[in-house]
Amino acid sequence: MIVQYDGTRYAGWQRQDKTENTIQGKIESILSKMVGTAITINGSGRTDAGVHAIGQVINVKMNTPYAPKEIKEYMNTYLPEDIYIRKVHVVEERFHARLTAKGKQYSYCIVNHRNPNVFRRKYTYHLPNKLDIATMEKAIPYFLGTKDFAAFTSKKNSKKSTIRTIHSIEILQVEDEVRLVFQGDGFLYHMIRILMGTFIEIGYGQKRVEEIEEIFQGRDRSKAGYLVPAKGLLLEEVFY
Amino acid sequence: MIVQYDGTRYAGWQRQDKTENTIQGKIESILSKMVGTAITINGSGRTDAGVHAIGQVINVKMNTPYAPKEIKEYMNTYLPEDIYIRKVHVVEERFHARLTAKGKQYSYCIVNHRNPNVFRRKYTYHLPNKLDIATMEKAIPYFLGTKDFAAFTSKKNSKKSTIRTIHSIEILQVEDEVRLVFQGDGFLYHMIRILMGTFIEIGYGQKRVEEIEEIFQGRDRSKAGYLVPAKGLLLEEVFY
Repeated sequence: MIVQYDGTRYAGWQRQDKTENTIQGKIESILSKMVGTAITINGSGRTDAGVHAIGQVINVKMNTPYAPKEIKEYMNTYLPEDIYIRKVHVVEERFHARLTAKGKQYSYCIVNHRNPNVFRRKYTYHLPNKLDIATMEKAIPYFLGTKDFAAFTSKKNSKKSTIRTIHSIEILQVEDEVRLVFQGDGFLYHMIRILMGTFIEIGYGQKRVEEIEEIFQGRDRSKAGYLVPAKGLLLEEVFY
Repeated sequence: MIVQYDGTRYAGWQRQDKTENTIQGKIESILSKMVGTAITINGSGRTDAGVHAIGQVINVKMNTPYAPKEIKEYMNTYLPEDIYIRKVHVVEERFHARLTAKGKQYSYCIVNHRNPNVFRRKYTYHLPNKLDIATMEKAIPYFLGTKDFAAFTSKKNSKKSTIRTIHSIEILQVEDEVRLVFQGDGFLYHMIRILMGTFIEIGYGQKRVEEIEEIFQGRDRSKAGYLVPAKGLLLEEVFY
């Protein structure tokens, strides 16, 4: 299933105890009602509280007499208006939303205007001072390719690899909105939000493009940029 | 002052009794606190519950030692995040936001896609079936100029004139969004929302372009299109 959601009201993707309002929890409870047994879904990855998605992917194994189209309709009837199932497909047995994912595309959206935009306040990060986009563009190549992103994650003393590959970073400007689009094979915890903080500091001349290489080599979180708010982050697509 | 607001949470523009949450009420209570006496503002016009604005204009007479810039800053500090003062100007004594207004621009936004867009749900009207935009374009000239819009308002047995002038109607399409932009000297109660219902019925072949003239002549509300939801409506600009 391909799912879009407005993450504003939720304590993130991952189901926690019953008192927490999560997107996974909402979807599972509706599917469980539909089939009459407890259902667990696999998401392509967790999104944090306040993060949005237009192309989150989930898979689920279940016995149901319903066709994909009927499942979509059933779910959208009972889901709240800030979660919507865009597509339901039958997939091969071996498909797993997280384990078979080859890559992801995220974007992060800034409103770069003196005044905030009240309609975009939950989906964008407001920066009133003008960013130097040309300098930010020059920084892009330093982040591309297969690198150790240890400096760009909030996860500490993890034994897991912090090596990831970023395929592309694009900066799109439409009127007052500046959107950075990241494609990569996967992203560490808080990685895009810290990359964004780093790009913003470069755009404000607080960090120089020449420092990026050092930040990578230092593997020290405190040398990278700040963690930007979750609300500007959008999971756009998962690739398989 | 030029004001933008997300009307979702409000019982419309106009101050009512104290229990109602209105945009006028919010602005007046903050101005009153700032100057220490009860302040009444004039808006360019009322907007209904759920209607939004990016360019609502208000004027106010008050004695204050603060400069316009300071007033803007004070107000935006205390206003909730869904109301924002874009500009504060000193104006001539004779300026009145409603009485000296020469015209207004409103737009109405439809998401015309099989799937709704969760991020735009409070600012657009979702129509899953494809509208015939070319036919809607053909209908535009029938609504332009100075006409009696009695059939296109919800106000009954009013002694006031129902004659208004529409200067232009434009249909803009960006991806799945269809936006109709109306410029006119003024609009009657529910006029744009009923015009929109009429355009939509034309776009779905439920009304023919040839019927429009009859609807005008009949002056009968029941012959015009349905009243579309408030949430797609946006007051964009007031002209002086």
